[in-house]
Amino acid sequence: MKLDEHARALIGYGADATLVTLNPNGSPQISVVWIAVHTTPNGDDELVTAHLAEHKKVHNIRHDNRVALTVLSTDRSGTMTPYLSIYGTARVEEGGAPELLRELAKTMIGHDAKFPPMDDPPPGFVTHIEVARIGGMGPWAD
Amino acid sequence: MKLDEHARALIGYGADATLVTLNPNGSPQISVVWIAVHTTPNGDDELVTAHLAEHKKVHNIRHDNRVALTVLSTDRSGTMTPYLSIYGTARVEEGGAPELLRELAKTMIGHDAKFPPMDDPPPGFVTHIEVARIGGMGPWAD
Repeated sequence: MKLDEHARALIGYGADATLVTLNPNGSPQISVVWIAVHTTPNGDDELVTAHLAEHKKVHNIRHDNRVALTVLSTDRSGTMTPYLSIYGTARVEEGGAPELLRELAKTMIGHDAKFPPMDDPPPGFVTHIEVARIGGMGPWAD
Repeated sequence: MKLDEHARALIGYGADATLVTLNPNGSPQISVVWIAVHTTPNGDDELVTAHLAEHKKVHNIRHDNRVALTVLSTDRSGTMTPYLSIYGTARVEEGGAPELLRELAKTMIGHDAKFPPMDDPPPGFVTHIEVARIGGMGPWAD
């Protein structure tokens, strides 16, 4: 599916997201990752995130592809902090992590950031998340 | 278990947390809630959160008590945003939501906030989370 303009504006060119995957015993695993919105060849929006190492979340997604994410607004002026929830399914692709991390680091750290910091980073993994449903609290959930 | 001083300082007297519960089909359900740290009669720390209505998360916890939370630091000065992950088990108690929301609203909105906004709020539900494991990125995870 496509993300609406409000959800796109919240994520911008990169955002911190809490990513939930499911452990083999069904319990939730959580971590905070950088995400970006990419457009797939057929015109849908997908979320992408990169991992240099084969973390638990990578194993989890291979075992059960159901994931969820939240992105909190940095606007704390109202009673409740607006947030976007995203539910979908994920797939892991080998390689491509340094390129995506370099792209995201420009937004998340600064234009001249060197991230990954090492000279010869491993290819890592890129997780692609197909968006099935949007929720949360804010204009994207109305 | 007890939370260390760093985790306590991050949560303070109230914080936004992404709360993960498990739907009946095992998929993750997420929402952002206000949490506080309370001390149980036997001296352990637990996290508490209040709900005025019987949301999906309340049903989910009654069905499967495994939960996870993240709290993001508001300190964005480093490369990565520090965050606290908490894994534990939850139980729902009937009543007590307006009192806990009033306590949390002082931190989350302001000392003179009227929240819940209605004159006669329903008793609602309070979820108590027993902490089993701490993770994330920051001094609490070292």
